[in-house]
Amino acid sequence: MYKLKKIEGGVCASEGFYADGISAGLKANNAKDMAFVYSDVVCDIAATFTTNKMTAAPIRHFKKKGDFQTNFVLINSKNANAMTGEAGIKDIEEILATLPQGIINPVMSSTGVIGVRLPKEKLIEGAKLFNLTRQEPNAAAQAIMTTDTFSKQIAYEVTLEDKTVFHIGAMAKGAGMINPAMATMLCFITTDAKVNKEEMQEIINENVQTTFNAASVDGDTSTNDTVMLLSNGKSGAYNRAAFSEALYEIMRFLARQMVKDGEGATKLVTYEVSGAKSDSEAETVAKALSNSLLVKTALYGEDPNWGRVASTVGASGAEADESLLTISFNDVCVYEKGSLYFDAEMEKKASAVMKLDEFSIYCDLGIGNGKFTAFGCDLGHKYVEINADYRT
Amino acid sequence: MYKLKKIEGGVCASEGFYADGISAGLKANNAKDMAFVYSDVVCDIAATFTTNKMTAAPIRHFKKKGDFQTNFVLINSKNANAMTGEAGIKDIEEILATLPQGIINPVMSSTGVIGVRLPKEKLIEGAKLFNLTRQEPNAAAQAIMTTDTFSKQIAYEVTLEDKTVFHIGAMAKGAGMINPAMATMLCFITTDAKVNKEEMQEIINENVQTTFNAASVDGDTSTNDTVMLLSNGKSGAYNRAAFSEALYEIMRFLARQMVKDGEGATKLVTYEVSGAKSDSEAETVAKALSNSLLVKTALYGEDPNWGRVASTVGASGAEADESLLTISFNDVCVYEKGSLYFDAEMEKKASAVMKLDEFSIYCDLGIGNGKFTAFGCDLGHKYVEINADYRT
Repeated sequence: MYKLKKIEGGVCASEGFYADGISAGLKANNAKDMAFVYSDVVCDIAATFTTNKMTAAPIRHFKKKGDFQTNFVLINSKNANAMTGEAGIKDIEEILATLPQGIINPVMSSTGVIGVRLPKEKLIEGAKLFNLTRQEPNAAAQAIMTTDTFSKQIAYEVTLEDKTVFHIGAMAKGAGMINPAMATMLCFITTDAKVNKEEMQEIINENVQTTFNAASVDGDTSTNDTVMLLSNGKSGAYNRAAFSEALYEIMRFLARQMVKDGEGATKLVTYEVSGAKSDSEAETVAKALSNSLLVKTALYGEDPNWGRVASTVGASGAEADESLLTISFNDVCVYEKGSLYFDAEMEKKASAVMKLDEFSIYCDLGIGNGKFTAFGCDLGHKYVEINADYRT
Repeated sequence: MYKLKKIEGGVCASEGFYADGISAGLKANNAKDMAFVYSDVVCDIAATFTTNKMTAAPIRHFKKKGDFQTNFVLINSKNANAMTGEAGIKDIEEILATLPQGIINPVMSSTGVIGVRLPKEKLIEGAKLFNLTRQEPNAAAQAIMTTDTFSKQIAYEVTLEDKTVFHIGAMAKGAGMINPAMATMLCFITTDAKVNKEEMQEIINENVQTTFNAASVDGDTSTNDTVMLLSNGKSGAYNRAAFSEALYEIMRFLARQMVKDGEGATKLVTYEVSGAKSDSEAETVAKALSNSLLVKTALYGEDPNWGRVASTVGASGAEADESLLTISFNDVCVYEKGSLYFDAEMEKKASAVMKLDEFSIYCDLGIGNGKFTAFGCDLGHKYVEINADYRT
């Protein structure tokens, strides 16, 4: 058996990893806007990226490199370097070329406004402020934020049966433009586990489906979504089941943190869909619910309007029938195959659930064995405020 | 040749049609909430309904009747009679059974809250107030409104080459829960044209794709969507091309009116997508744009954030490439295959377009010949207010 223990330290919790965030003058008021993650020995990389066809320059730059190892990731917020064509890739190459010796095959990751060239000089000057011996995971996590209201970090220490120990640490950003087809987000994970590259890519791919890809804030998929895992093998320890479980916990935690920090969100709602014709139909329904504007505004209004849930299930395209459907808000059943009468007493109980910061909406379609769980949030005035004028 | 002339009279513009709206006490303050459309001779019917699997009782009642003619449609607002099972159909049968003699095969149509049984007694008492000799199209159009801020009517007189004349008149409701998979809406169209039943169904089906099914307010598809066309043949006149064109104009006008009246909408935006791999991919892109929360909030903020348009095109699933894409706001090109620099001058011009009440966003994907045009609106604080607590 193995043991998972949550620890402090974010991306620096893994042995040999360093990180910091500084201000390069992209954000106002000297806020941190540029970060690095550095390993003192070279790392294998596993990554998954956005499915958006307008892939941002950093992702195209990464993919162009083919198979490679690195010890350095440079990250900036405020500018996504997306829709910038070949020039966007050239900008990255020029910035990375100025990094000091000892940095091997560096890559870059960006988040922010689309369609504006990187402020290259500022970033080159900013990189000169980096001190690779610093372990400031909080500063790094802050520097990668955009509309996030809090930074997102987590780390685990994993002790195996033979008493060997490895670590996984992570930081992420993401608050809006988050969608089931890969949340709009950046996530950097470090580990000193002795995992091989193929296996670590496999485990990332498995876990992303039920974590980041099950999270939705507004149904929009960005140009820059990135999950990157760096492993330097320094601990010498590894066990697949333990590694996979710790990674799942990390990714699930960060996905839920992002939804919780959804622009203007006041609630984190888990949609647990069961009884669908197939898992894929359950996924369709769960994501339709987490993306429905009418459901999201009802959540914001704390209105137990289960009719909107039923209507969204019906509109999702999945096989569904009102005489087989059951809907519950936590343990309060609000609709059961047409046999329940939604009276004042039930409304009172359901309203109480809607007032919680976190709760589940259960939909059993009563047709087959398909299951899927998605995460979503409400949509309120703050979302409109934030997004009506994001650029200024 | 034929001539189309816009006239007054709504659903009563067609010969032999009568309509009125009364208060049955479903809405507060004696507001009109119950309407009828009556023809003094029996009518053929063509109809299209929602694709939502949780089909409301009135639609299931209609479909159960099979092939039939009628002279009477009863409509209520405030209660959708959806998710009410077999009881919902029985309620309809009981209400319609109380209508006076001379009414043949009546049907019912409902809109409002989901999941609550019809207030049957109120509706039966309300129907007693109907006077079938009245032609009050405005009152009828008001009675079917829910969150609509204005009533929606239109009528055309069509003069054929041989000087014979027919009419088409219509009323509709719809403001929220409006989605490309059939707008959430009720629409009743009357005609005295001598059109045969099969042809009129064909023409409705053709036109619905480019009108109601191209309109989006919030991407949600309701349980009650209905377009119903009644023809009594009284004019004796008919010409397919003229009929189809007039019907298209009517349906397009009403679809655009609905989007214009989208809950809290301040702008009507037309998305003209061209150069897609196929018409169906163009449709995917146009509807993705009209449904994107990030695009809709940028419209509300009058922010010419073309990056969100590009990102939504990329996320839509359609084939797309930033080096082939062109985006314009009306005649202001904001992105052209990566070759334009979006400077302060362009931003000023684009901002001016965004301040208009109505404008077009053109996206040419530069790949094939596929085209589609969709209608959408912005999303602002009012939408949140209206939908956070619709039931109270």
